[in-house]
Amino acid sequence: MQDLYPTRRKEEKIVDRVDDVVYSKSSKKYSLKEDEVMFFEENGYIIFPEFFTEKEVGTLNWALEELKSDSSMKDREEYITEPDSNELRTIFSQHRFSSVFEQLISDRRILDKVEQILGSKAYIHQSRINIKPAYKGKSFPWHSDFETWHAEDGLPRCRTVSAWIMLTDNTQFNGPLYLVPGSHKKFVACAGETPKDNYKESLKNQKYGVPSLEAMKVLSKDNGITAALGKAGTLVFHDGNMMHGSPDNISPDPRTNAFFVYNSIENKPVKPFAAKGQRASFLCLKDFKAL
Amino acid sequence: MQDLYPTRRKEEKIVDRVDDVVYSKSSKKYSLKEDEVMFFEENGYIIFPEFFTEKEVGTLNWALEELKSDSSMKDREEYITEPDSNELRTIFSQHRFSSVFEQLISDRRILDKVEQILGSKAYIHQSRINIKPAYKGKSFPWHSDFETWHAEDGLPRCRTVSAWIMLTDNTQFNGPLYLVPGSHKKFVACAGETPKDNYKESLKNQKYGVPSLEAMKVLSKDNGITAALGKAGTLVFHDGNMMHGSPDNISPDPRTNAFFVYNSIENKPVKPFAAKGQRASFLCLKDFKAL
Repeated sequence: MQDLYPTRRKEEKIVDRVDDVVYSKSSKKYSLKEDEVMFFEENGYIIFPEFFTEKEVGTLNWALEELKSDSSMKDREEYITEPDSNELRTIFSQHRFSSVFEQLISDRRILDKVEQILGSKAYIHQSRINIKPAYKGKSFPWHSDFETWHAEDGLPRCRTVSAWIMLTDNTQFNGPLYLVPGSHKKFVACAGETPKDNYKESLKNQKYGVPSLEAMKVLSKDNGITAALGKAGTLVFHDGNMMHGSPDNISPDPRTNAFFVYNSIENKPVKPFAAKGQRASFLCLKDFKAL
Repeated sequence: MQDLYPTRRKEEKIVDRVDDVVYSKSSKKYSLKEDEVMFFEENGYIIFPEFFTEKEVGTLNWALEELKSDSSMKDREEYITEPDSNELRTIFSQHRFSSVFEQLISDRRILDKVEQILGSKAYIHQSRINIKPAYKGKSFPWHSDFETWHAEDGLPRCRTVSAWIMLTDNTQFNGPLYLVPGSHKKFVACAGETPKDNYKESLKNQKYGVPSLEAMKVLSKDNGITAALGKAGTLVFHDGNMMHGSPDNISPDPRTNAFFVYNSIENKPVKPFAAKGQRASFLCLKDFKAL
């Protein structure tokens, strides 16, 4: 299969995105309105403030607490700690361990918009809850998820969308997600050959697939950087190729978000495009059944 | 001399500030207006957006470049690098190495306000330029400068004010200073005995004199956290006992600020209140002549 997004070569390159951003142009049968589709297409993200009720958020947080207090989870490879402490940083595949999150991935309020963006049925490529503890939560460097999914998981096209829910308020101060509006239209082919089992390090401290300072200057030149802020219950969609990162959390408030990566069923993974082996199966789920 | 702010004991304690915030109540002969004095007294800081002209900021940045390119500076103890790279983090005593910064400390536009706040003539207790390089600049944990100046330098009373100038824009994204409005009215007596030569570590990675998460929750409960943002040339004053910190800088833009700590000539240092030795002389200057 042709590699439309060559990456992890000797030199960094910024190239144009080959794929569409929104695959279904008609908004008639879907819930995203025309201006919302236009905003997403242009900027690569869209925020729905307090989309879920306080009660719903309460249930999601309760489900997370259940996962955290389940001692058998701590030994699983889906359970990732901070680089310099034993504090929980990420739980992967929450929808496989919790019925609450399992139901959530098929919630029509989300799935309808996902199908509209992807122009097809979808399945979950990856899910995770990112926890940034107060005081201790470390930063995530800039990256496009799709760059890794293409290089290390073999997703051929950029036809994925991340839907995520704020489980706590995301403020200016507690390490929120920073996005580069419009960056989804460019693909940063990153420099450096992927090391073996890269993911074991990269989940704690990503080094490959991170653009240079110069590339970030180019990407952010026109539209700058924005922060995805909102109260708990806020729903955000961002394109799989969105350049994003987040600073550390020195504030006294934790920041927790639940991510669900939807991939088009027409974009199933093939052999990784720029890595020798496969990543751990929880990073690239293989249940391709349409939701 | 009585220790009005005992700290570095076994247990952390939050106590009331003993000293005044603004020592000169009349605003008649000074340039801070009555509402500005009230704001500073209540919040512990005040921001003057773009106080210095573009040309003046250009001169200050030129003077900083002169210091950076002076290879003899690199061997001085005033030259502090990032904890995990050789990137410059802080230059101390810039007013002693550069005539531009030397003139600046006596600039009447600053000094007049300093004298109004301190109710006396003042001298420079410490000066520094904090550089937070794009991508690499690390965070500073929460601290009150006065807690260290009292414990390790022996400043008896809280009668100091920091005046600082933004040499680059300080945005939400490039690791700006976070302040806890009103925190200057409380003194957090921090836990833990000061180790010998603590400053050698603390300038890169402060561990003593940092309040607990619980203390930060108490301090920020009423007024939350605010960020000191502004264009280059913005002038900020904050009380010596202001609780502040700053996140890392993952943005593609550097963030550089020049700080000048003014102490009242009536508040000269005595023996450190909670440390065995003296800190390096550049951290606690001894030129007590009134400016």
